[in-house]
This record gives sequence, C-alpha cells and structure tokens, in this order.
Amino acid sequence: MAKVLTSKEENYSQWYNDLVTKADLAENSSVRGCMVIKPYGYAIWEKIQNILDTMFKKTGHSNAYFPLLIPKSFFSKEASHVEGFAKECAIVTHYRLKNSPDGKGVIVDETAKLEEELIIRPTSETIIWSTYKNWIQSYRDLPLLINQWANIVRWEMRTRLFLRTSEFLWQEGHTAHATKEEAIEETNKMLNIYAEFAEKTLGIPVIIGKKSDSEKFAGAIDTYCIEAMMLDGKALQAGTSHFLGQNFAKAFDVKFTNKEGKLDYVWATSWGVSTRLIGALIMAHSDNNGLVLPPKIAPIQVVIIPIYKNEQEHSIVLNKCKEIKEKLENVALTVKLDDRDTQKPGWKFAEYELKGIPIRIAVGPKDIENGTIEIARRDTLEKKLIPNDNFSENVLKLLDDIQQNIYNKALKFREQHTYKIDNYTEFKTAIENGGFFEAFWDGTPETEAKIKDETKATIRCIPQYSNDKEGFCMVTGKPSKKRVIFARAY
Amino acid sequence: MAKVLTSKEENYSQWYNDLVTKADLAENSSVRGCMVIKPYGYAIWEKIQNILDTMFKKTGHSNAYFPLLIPKSFFSKEASHVEGFAKECAIVTHYRLKNSPDGKGVIVDETAKLEEELIIRPTSETIIWSTYKNWIQSYRDLPLLINQWANIVRWEMRTRLFLRTSEFLWQEGHTAHATKEEAIEETNKMLNIYAEFAEKTLGIPVIIGKKSDSEKFAGAIDTYCIEAMMLDGKALQAGTSHFLGQNFAKAFDVKFTNKEGKLDYVWATSWGVSTRLIGALIMAHSDNNGLVLPPKIAPIQVVIIPIYKNEQEHSIVLNKCKEIKEKLENVALTVKLDDRDTQKPGWKFAEYELKGIPIRIAVGPKDIENGTIEIARRDTLEKKLIPNDNFSENVLKLLDDIQQNIYNKALKFREQHTYKIDNYTEFKTAIENGGFFEAFWDGTPETEAKIKDETKATIRCIPQYSNDKEGFCMVTGKPSKKRVIFARAY
Repeated sequence: MAKVLTSKEENYSQWYNDLVTKADLAENSSVRGCMVIKPYGYAIWEKIQNILDTMFKKTGHSNAYFPLLIPKSFFSKEASHVEGFAKECAIVTHYRLKNSPDGKGVIVDETAKLEEELIIRPTSETIIWSTYKNWIQSYRDLPLLINQWANIVRWEMRTRLFLRTSEFLWQEGHTAHATKEEAIEETNKMLNIYAEFAEKTLGIPVIIGKKSDSEKFAGAIDTYCIEAMMLDGKALQAGTSHFLGQNFAKAFDVKFTNKEGKLDYVWATSWGVSTRLIGALIMAHSDNNGLVLPPKIAPIQVVIIPIYKNEQEHSIVLNKCKEIKEKLENVALTVKLDDRDTQKPGWKFAEYELKGIPIRIAVGPKDIENGTIEIARRDTLEKKLIPNDNFSENVLKLLDDIQQNIYNKALKFREQHTYKIDNYTEFKTAIENGGFFEAFWDGTPETEAKIKDETKATIRCIPQYSNDKEGFCMVTGKPSKKRVIFARAY
Repeated sequence: MAKVLTSKEENYSQWYNDLVTKADLAENSSVRGCMVIKPYGYAIWEKIQNILDTMFKKTGHSNAYFPLLIPKSFFSKEASHVEGFAKECAIVTHYRLKNSPDGKGVIVDETAKLEEELIIRPTSETIIWSTYKNWIQSYRDLPLLINQWANIVRWEMRTRLFLRTSEFLWQEGHTAHATKEEAIEETNKMLNIYAEFAEKTLGIPVIIGKKSDSEKFAGAIDTYCIEAMMLDGKALQAGTSHFLGQNFAKAFDVKFTNKEGKLDYVWATSWGVSTRLIGALIMAHSDNNGLVLPPKIAPIQVVIIPIYKNEQEHSIVLNKCKEIKEKLENVALTVKLDDRDTQKPGWKFAEYELKGIPIRIAVGPKDIENGTIEIARRDTLEKKLIPNDNFSENVLKLLDDIQQNIYNKALKFREQHTYKIDNYTEFKTAIENGGFFEAFWDGTPETEAKIKDETKATIRCIPQYSNDKEGFCMVTGKPSKKRVIFARAY
C-alpha cells in the first residue's frame, strides 16, 4: 500500500485530517460543523467512556440525564454565563413542519411557533441547577454527585474533526456541596482523575494548573485544567474542572438548611472532558504511518495476520493463529484475526499500522517450524521473534512496555519543547516554532491580552507545581509571583 | 412509612406517576414534555444498555454516532417517511442570541438565520443513509451493521414519563445488505434479540408479530414488533424491527456493485428500543408497595439492613452485614449496605420495597446467635430464615427463582387477560376492561380504522406464531386467514 497520509512535516494540518479520515475515525457530515464518528473512532470513545465512568463511580458519582433543550431565559440568570455561552448556539423556534403549498417538500409551519425559544444545551449548568432546586432542602441531601454523558451543540464557525465541532459528545459532572471546602476538594479530585486518566491510559503527559481569569469558564470562580502538548508544539486543553462557588445556586435560588439550622446557598462544581480527547490522542502520538494507540485505549490490542502460499499452508497457519488468539483472549486482551483472502498481507500490515494497533503478529509456516512467533510493535515499528513458551506473558509485558514508551516519548517531546523565557522579543520569535514557554507575567488581563494580540499565544495555565521563585514580567517588567505557561493552542 | 402510592385499583394512571416520581426514577423537567431521568432510573437504563449492547456486539454490530441535526430537505426524500416524521419536530432556525435592547436577557439575533432549517432527529434513517452513500460501493463493503445510542426529539402533545416524552433516549440500528434475504434475516434476528431480552432479562412475556400496514414505520416495507401486556390490560409496543427494502437506498441513491458486477440498490433494516422499556418494566410487574424489579435488571440486587438497639449491638451486627456483603459481592452480585442512622429500619424496608430491590436482608443480634439470616423477597413479600451455610448459593438460587417467578406471573396475567373473540358487539363491551383480543380481521385498512374509531383498539400485531385456521372477520364477516391481536395501547 502506498503512503496514504500527507507527511506531518509537509503539512501538519493536512496530515491530521488525512489520518482522521483514512484511519476511519470520523468524517465531516452533510450538516455544517457536525461530524460522523465512525465505528473505529467510536470504539475509542467507548473505551474512554468505560474507563472514566468506572473512575467516576468509584469516587461516588452516579449518572443521570437532563433535557437537551433549555429555555432561553435560563441563560440570562447567571450574568457571566450568558456572555460566555448563550450567544453562539442552536435555537429551536418552531415545533412543526407542513407540506409546502408548491408541493415541493416541507416548510416551517409559522403557526407552530414556541412561546419561548429553546436552546440546544451548550453546557448544562442552568437546566441542572434549576432541577437541583427541588432536590436539595437540607445538608442531608448533600453532597449530590452527578455526572451526565451527553451531546452538546455550540455554533462554531471554524471546525475541525474531534478538536472543534458544532456538535460533540462529552461528560459533564455537576456536584452540589454543603461547604466551600468540600466543593474545592471535589474540583481538585476530578482534575486529578482527569490527569491520571490522560497520563496512565492515554499516555499523554499533562500540566495541571489554573486558568487565568480571562480564560476561565463563564460562571466559574476558578477553572482548573490539564494541558497537553501536541506534536506541532501547540497546546490542547484536555479537560477542565470548575469551582463554581455559589454562583449557580444564587442564580437558581438553591438554598439548604445547614447543620446549624441556618439557610445557605449550595456550593457547586462542574467538570468535563469530550470527544476532543480523541483529537489529543491522535496529535500526541501518531506518525506518518498513521495512528499510534496506547494499548490501554486501543479497541483492538493485537492483530494476527496469517501468511501462506497455498491452501495446505493456510489451514495449518490458520489453526496456529486461532490458537494464539485464544491464548491472548484468555488473558483478557482484545484480539483481531484478519483472515480475509481479499487483501494481501502487505496491505493488511499497512492498514493496521494506519489504525494504530499496538501489536501485530504475523504467522507463517516457517514460524510454526521454528517454534517462534513474529511480533511487530506499532510504536517503534520494531519486529522481533518471540518463543512459543510463556507467549501470553511476553505479549502482556510488551504491551506494558509500549504503554510506557508512548508516554515517555510524549514526555520527552514536551520537555524538549518547553522553554524558560524572560525576554519578550525573543518570545515573539520563538513562539513561531511552537512549544510551551514558561514566563513571568504581571498578572494583569491587559498584559495577557497584549501578548495574545501580538503573538496568538495564550496563558494555558498557572501551573499547580513549580519550583520557581518570584521574578519580573517579561512584557512590563513588573513583579510576578510565578512563571505561567504560554503557548498557541487548539 | 405511610403508603406513598395511590393504589393501582383506585387510579392506575396516578399509581404509575406516583411510582415513577417517588421511587426516584424520573420527573418532569421545566421544559415541556422533557423528563429528567434521575440516578436510580438512569441506572436501570445503564443496565439495559449494557446487556443489549453486548447482545448487539455478539451478533457483529458496531456502534457509531451520527449528527443530532438533520437538514430539513432530507425528510422530503422518502415520501412516506416525511408524512410520518417530519411534522411534529423541533426545528432549529437560528444560531445566535444577542442582548435584548431593553437590557433584560437575550433575544434571537434575526441576522443569524439558517439558510436551511435543521431538524432535531426524530429518527436517523435520512442522515445515516445520506452518509452510507459514501461508505458503500461494492458488495465487499456489505453488510454494514451499525448501531447508535442517542437522544431523539418528537414533539409530543400528550406526554407521560418514560412512555411518551418529547425527548427520549434510545438505540437505533441501521444495517445495509447486498440481498433482500439477508436484510429480512437481519430484521428477524434483531426482533428475536429484543424478544429474548424482554423475556429473559426484563421478565416481560411478549408477542412477536408484524404490524398491519397502517401501523407500520413510515418508510418501511414491513414492521415487526414485540408487544407486551401491562397490568391494566393495555398493550405496550416494546421494540420494533423494520425491513426497509430499498426505500432509503433509492431516496439517497445508495447503489453497490454486486458479485455479478451489476449495480443495484442496497437493502436496509432499522430497529430500536428506547427508555420506554423502563415504563414497560414498571407497568408489567409493580404493585401498590412500589416497583418490582427482576434481579437481572435491578441496579441493586440485594440490600442489607442492620437492626440494633445500642452501640454494642451495632458494632457486632455491622460486622456481620459487611461479611455478608463481601460474600455476595464475591459471587458478582450488586449489594447495598444501608447503615444510615438517620432512618429507622421500618422506613428503610418501605423505601427499598418502593424501589423494587429483589432481596432484602435484615441482620439483628438474634440472627447472629441463631446462625440464620432473614431474607425477604420483593416479588412475593415473603420472608424466610436462611442458614449461614451455603449462604451465597442460596441467595443466587433465590434470585433465579425471583427472576422466573416475575416472568411466570406476568405470563399468567397475560394469559388470563387474552381472549378469543368472534363477535364484534361483545368485543366492544369487553375491550372496556382491557386485555388482548384474538380476532379474525378481513385485512382491510377500512375495517381496522372502523374498529379503532369505535373502540380505540388497534391491531397490535399479526402474531408470528399461532395455530389458528382460517375464519371470518368479526366486523364484516369476510374471510380471514388468521387471528390478529387487538388491544388498546400506550
């Protein structure tokens, strides 16, 4: 099979689009800005869902489902929320079509106009807090730890598959607490769950930190995030966790009687990750041959391909392949045996490289004679022969190695492209090549806006962990407490 | 705890509403016709999803995701489909709000009007077949076996929690095949999966059959269904599987090259079940104490309640409860230990009866002394003492008994309320008390319409299995091949 992808070095953006469509992950639909998530891409999303859902449940959260449609007036109840969310959205104004008088198709029935327009949820704080009002009376009803898996619509003007689409899939946690401290603890707990998931499962190292005021969620007191570096040196926000204070409780009048018998507003958090994570996964690890999937998130972990010249060989080889498949399935691996005779082995090799299957096993008559099995790992493209004995253990160990190697490689890449910088003129040049820049900032939105305006770089986060002492803002020279991360971002 | 439900005999409809809200399954939202599915109700939906999803995958289906929004013109492409679906739907006409000039809230920005209106999917045949056009060229691309878990909006005028809501959750399978025979086989296969799931998991006996032409899916050649009887004798359609012929392939011009090298239109099926199944589950088994859940679908299968008078007893009893919990979890049961000291045991007993937990275990100091454990089963409300030895095995066996008993009871109820009837005058009286009526019908839509008009009963299905010989239509006396099922329905 000829190279099917534009190379990363030639055109990064085209490489990404090629990869997403040719690896059968997703494609643009006939509806502007909305994607079709194809079975292989959706299988990755299902893995993300299963693993995160288990983590949420282990920490005491339950799933529920709230309406897709939100009355327009709900958005005006929280002042900063409406500014951030109610503008670019899909608005339902009518509830009936009728036959067109000219006999061609259907038209909107103007008599079926809604009294109040409904907005397709761009996020669910408003509808959920309007519901929580009836669920919470006393501290005994708290905490309320609820998550929702749902689709979201935000009317994006410039869209890219997975990274920014008008409709996307996500989970949104919405919790209610009796105290500020407990809500802050929850905000951090979920941020750490996201970080653990990104690093241990997706193999993506992340920087944990807090957003500046101008980058925070519309309606939050504080927004925390995990930021990942993509292979072009740009940043991608991979998950956010918001401490909402009492903002939504006040907007929707949600009060509770505390242990002292006094009425108080409820404290809130919300947190979410979306199908954007699939974009992050692609852009963090893949190469010019295609996708590179960490074993823990790969829908298929091992693919087995029989190699044979005639029917007699086929039958022997196929038996061996089936035996291997069973062995590996017995240690809980997901294995595909591709015995199609419509494609040649070489075509299959390229196909599964494109799709990022972590391990490829090829079995031919010679391997059976020699009592060894040929294994190719996707991350390094190395091949080696593995003895038949302890085969499953060896494969499991190799998968662990691959998982770790993918993470290490991404971490090394990030370290190589992270720079401490103190001179704004140098910064303006350096930012052109991508990367994370640790710089002192005077803490004002004016300086932040100037930098964004002049360089397209934003403050990705104020990192939670850093050893830096105080310094001076690279732009204004004013005192600064700590370096923050600047980067261009998706 | 006082009885919280209106009794079924007093007011069946109120009993249902009481049960849904008081067992914390769902509630009406502030958006007309849309419900909030609460954590306990959603946990039942998650069980339904998990079990069905496994059945779908075992039969070769993959999940994918298609856009929520469908261009209006798509609906006009299949003539009968537009009549059935494009009328009562949510229509997106604008994509931006702006601040109101009077400073109060937000209004629709009239300059942000869509060129073509978008419809929130009432079902996805059109958007999916417009996509399949690009996926299918040759018989090698077939069959395409895809399922989608999604939310759906149909603008319902009269809504009821779970049974009929403007937004609901469902799965919709959409498959594409090279031959008519294969598509019909798929239609039947999925119908049988639904029947097996309803009977074996939900404990609901169903009648498998075909819809009459006037009741079939808009756009189908044939619609097959499973019909269940509710406790008021009304019918509920619990799942449908449609043989779509080449209708959607023709509407969206989806052709393929067959093995003979000739171009032909692709054959299609679609099939779905929804959150309606939760309504069926409630109405098939519950009683005046609340929900009765078959063990296989119960989010919590066993609840353990400690009984004690003082702290010393509490500590001994709690240890025993934890030991029992661990034992049962080791045999893969889902167990809840309710050690809250804010509620009395009697309150808890009533609460878990209301929520339909199949088995309740109460542990007091006396039980520990005697080496026995008190078990109450929800379906019969019987209590018995079980010895400590082989405890887990006994509980597993009891759960099997409960599962079987719930099904048997529902089957017996249906049999007792199913009548062969040959006289239309008698039918008109008898239908008032509910039940399924097996009657001869002349096969004309006119007779069907007359019966519906005069009795509100519809043909639920033309049963797949029946021993009946030919007879004469109960209304017109014309010859009839087979008895069909008439009933009033949800």
